[in-house]
Amino acid sequence: MKNRVIAESKKLVMYSRANKLGLQAKLCIDVNCDVGESYGAYTIGNDEALMKLATSVNIACGFHAGDPAVMRRTVALAIKHGVSIGAHPGLPDRIGFGRRMMQITPHDVYDMTLYQIAALQGFVAAQGGAMRHVKPHGALYTMLASHEALAQSFAQAVIDFNNKLIVVGLAGSVFLQIAECMGLSVAHEAFADRRYQPDGSLTPRTEPCALVQSVGEAAAQAVRIAQEHTAVAVDGSEVPIYAQTICLHGDSPHSTKLARAVVRSLKSAGIELRAL
Amino acid sequence: MKNRVIAESKKLVMYSRANKLGLQAKLCIDVNCDVGESYGAYTIGNDEALMKLATSVNIACGFHAGDPAVMRRTVALAIKHGVSIGAHPGLPDRIGFGRRMMQITPHDVYDMTLYQIAALQGFVAAQGGAMRHVKPHGALYTMLASHEALAQSFAQAVIDFNNKLIVVGLAGSVFLQIAECMGLSVAHEAFADRRYQPDGSLTPRTEPCALVQSVGEAAAQAVRIAQEHTAVAVDGSEVPIYAQTICLHGDSPHSTKLARAVVRSLKSAGIELRAL
Amino acid sequence: MKNRVIAESKKLVMYSRANKLGLQAKLCIDVNCDVGESYGAYTIGNDEALMKLATSVNIACGFHAGDPAVMRRTVALAIKHGVSIGAHPGLPDRIGFGRRMMQITPHDVYDMTLYQIAALQGFVAAQGGAMRHVKPHGALYTMLASHEALAQSFAQAVIDFNNKLIVVGLAGSVFLQIAECMGLSVAHEAFADRRYQPDGSLTPRTEPCALVQSVGEAAAQAVRIAQEHTAVAVDGSEVPIYAQTICLHGDSPHSTKLARAVVRSLKSAGIELRAL
Amino acid sequence: MKNRVIAESKKLVMYSRANKLGLQAKLCIDVNCDVGESYGAYTIGNDEALMKLATSVNIACGFHAGDPAVMRRTVALAIKHGVSIGAHPGLPDRIGFGRRMMQITPHDVYDMTLYQIAALQGFVAAQGGAMRHVKPHGALYTMLASHEALAQSFAQAVIDFNNKLIVVGLAGSVFLQIAECMGLSVAHEAFADRRYQPDGSLTPRTEPCALVQSVGEAAAQAVRIAQEHTAVAVDGSEVPIYAQTICLHGDSPHSTKLARAVVRSLKSAGIELRAL
Repeated sequence: MKNRVIAESKKLVMYSRANKLGLQAKLCIDVNCDVGESYGAYTIGNDEALMKLATSVNIACGFHAGDPAVMRRTVALAIKHGVSIGAHPGLPDRIGFGRRMMQITPHDVYDMTLYQIAALQGFVAAQGGAMRHVKPHGALYTMLASHEALAQSFAQAVIDFNNKLIVVGLAGSVFLQIAECMGLSVAHEAFADRRYQPDGSLTPRTEPCALVQSVGEAAAQAVRIAQEHTAVAVDGSEVPIYAQTICLHGDSPHSTKLARAVVRSLKSAGIELRAL
Repeated sequence: MKNRVIAESKKLVMYSRANKLGLQAKLCIDVNCDVGESYGAYTIGNDEALMKLATSVNIACGFHAGDPAVMRRTVALAIKHGVSIGAHPGLPDRIGFGRRMMQITPHDVYDMTLYQIAALQGFVAAQGGAMRHVKPHGALYTMLASHEALAQSFAQAVIDFNNKLIVVGLAGSVFLQIAECMGLSVAHEAFADRRYQPDGSLTPRTEPCALVQSVGEAAAQAVRIAQEHTAVAVDGSEVPIYAQTICLHGDSPHSTKLARAVVRSLKSAGIELRAL
Repeated sequence: MKNRVIAESKKLVMYSRANKLGLQAKLCIDVNCDVGESYGAYTIGNDEALMKLATSVNIACGFHAGDPAVMRRTVALAIKHGVSIGAHPGLPDRIGFGRRMMQITPHDVYDMTLYQIAALQGFVAAQGGAMRHVKPHGALYTMLASHEALAQSFAQAVIDFNNKLIVVGLAGSVFLQIAECMGLSVAHEAFADRRYQPDGSLTPRTEPCALVQSVGEAAAQAVRIAQEHTAVAVDGSEVPIYAQTICLHGDSPHSTKLARAVVRSLKSAGIELRAL
Repeated sequence: MKNRVIAESKKLVMYSRANKLGLQAKLCIDVNCDVGESYGAYTIGNDEALMKLATSVNIACGFHAGDPAVMRRTVALAIKHGVSIGAHPGLPDRIGFGRRMMQITPHDVYDMTLYQIAALQGFVAAQGGAMRHVKPHGALYTMLASHEALAQSFAQAVIDFNNKLIVVGLAGSVFLQIAECMGLSVAHEAFADRRYQPDGSLTPRTEPCALVQSVGEAAAQAVRIAQEHTAVAVDGSEVPIYAQTICLHGDSPHSTKLARAVVRSLKSAGIELRAL
């Protein structure tokens, strides 16, 4: 927690300076979404619709979701739509879609991350594209947010692969702090449709108020995060959320509708959508 | 078959020219072996022993065998022993160890090859090594040897990944001919312990005389291939085998012993062992 | 082919006798469909809609499709809808959905069949249901139809598990003949939406005329098979098809519509739909 | 912990009664070992050697280890050696050999347990054998020992499959208490080569003193557990261990040697080895 406070005061300073220097600067934010999660005969998500909305995509790499053919096609789609490409490595748990915590070691994290990023890069480079970022998926994302040793291993894998890649993770998390300390560029991620705790963490999905139900409210939260760098926490308090990217979900008709509303509201508020 | 004849007359010319120009040149050959086939708690093969004998290794990439941790460790071992590193992509059939033919499409071959080569490259580059060649594994090796469309897809994946990689395959096969036509460097592979048919193909393992049983005989076959570019076929006829690399197996105590004998005999015959 | 002729003349005799003895008997046929093919976060097919139409269902057993949770839920759904339950074992190739031929041995077939049937039976028995039949899936279905040794192994696995189970397979195939010779009850399966060759085999899906496109035509083919035991082959000739069950597909909106039309036409023609 | 105390006082009463009634009764204990953990081309463990020592075996069911062919052969071996057969279901994590905790739900436990037990039963029944017990594997074993909801689900799966099966688990664990309350017969398991904590739990493998290193000491601990129902804990205190079965490991040359020593010592001490 202390670390988080330090990280945030540092960011506050950065933001204040930015405000002083560039008051007229147009606000901008990235909107990212998870794609390429289909598998063999199984289709999931509405990748093409999301690519029309997002500025960045996170492509599954064949462990929790995706397969080589899906990866090839998804990379092609991303290039066609001109969205920024990122790797989305996950746990080796396809039946659980990478959403179940597993008791993995730092070595496991290093190995599975390097393997998956590199495999995706094969398809990106073959098609003349460029990988710009890496974002851990599901339970790996959650575990990294708070486990320092795992976070270090993930960052090390990214460094050993390509130290120009931007690491995307939970806004204000130990994970991004570690990645930054290790020399990587990072992007803090916020959620339009998840409710925050007063300390800036996400309300667990097991709790009833975990999700922002209304489309309008979610769009408003996105705009507030982009403009004011705050969100209203579950207890009504205001919590600072500094984010360079907002996550859009698209695996249900509702979530695609929500993604559309978020993007529309951000644009209406004069916020520029720009890839990391 | 016609293709094979053309390929071989072309090679004959090359070899003749080589003889004319460099009679005094020392004969040399590569010896390669399959490594990195362990998986999780399961250990297979005697990689360290083989790396002391071979000049090149083919590292499994996590489909038919191997896993990210095994790949990392195997790459480290190869670098430590100074052997040349190659990728050894196989079919997505772990329970069958990639040895069972599968009805795959050219697209499947392209995707699985690119994915696996790229994944291994992640570990090779992270450790400062260099990947030099690619050799298909098991049933994929066999299918490529005779299926033109599949062979083209494999070669295309290599080209799209890194067109400097050398493709290793069955000596005289359509596969290598296609890869060469597509602009890749190729290395024809011969076997010390497999019996050849009069047409230069391998006697299927299902036949009783598929294997050269005696260690001495296998070593002699290796020397003969390296020196005279011929082998004695199952019918006693002499069959031309032009090979730049000889495969060593090492998954049983017998095969490690055989590998040792082959290497010793090649060296005794004054043949230099040199990586591709 | 000779075997097929013998089998069919035998069936002709049976059918003729049936006609003599029971001219007034109402015609009846089973309609079966493949269900339980979802997997983890992936949903496929419209199981509930199909269960309202079919009299029998074939439940995937976790190899090519399905998983333990899907199996439990699908068995519950089948019991709720009162449809007859069968096992639908397939090849261990989830990424290929069990649709790619694999070079498997008779031992492989025995082992994978026994494992899958037994696993499903766990859920069926736990819920107080009864397994009535077994139908191989996809490429396994196709391979068994013509490979005697594989067909024997499959039948042996069924016998060793429960020799009261009915084996469902391609109408007129060597597979059913062998299963019958080994003492099992069999059910010959016909397809409403596949075009037949003059010899009674299915036109491969790779050929343009493999599928009956029009819903009305498919329904008519089903009625003709049930009433007259014939179909019109691709060359316009009439081919005898003796079937006790007709397969409905349901993995696309079109196929669900087709399934509804087939069932409606069969009922309109006075044919009783009855489980095997 | 309260539950544990209650369970143990209950057992104390049972043991005292047994002592009063049957002072002359020969002491007896079961020795069990994990087998059938090979997979495809991968061999692990020395099953045949262990079957000559053990009275019961726990056969892997294809999730964390084993496959259909290995299951068939292992069942045959168990029947040949006359050892009692049990199912050894594990987590769906082959690469981690089922040894990594996973965040699974009670439903997951129910489904994976029922699936695996039922699949193994297919091979046992086909060969005319009888399944007598079920023992969870690895991380599933550890999680069940302390998670009530998971333990209930496991027990329910056993009840729904065959309520005559004996459930084997950690001596004194909540798991066995729950299984017993739900009407199942249970067998408390002790370890010859693991060090106990003063509260009867196992010292985690991550701690240096987790294992009893010396073969003689391990054999002595087994005899002490069988005769005196106690072990010496890591802090030197005496901890009561009531066990009906002792686990033998056999995946290394050392452990096979240890297994031999344990069995020899038990026999020398006049303790009868008898299956559950």
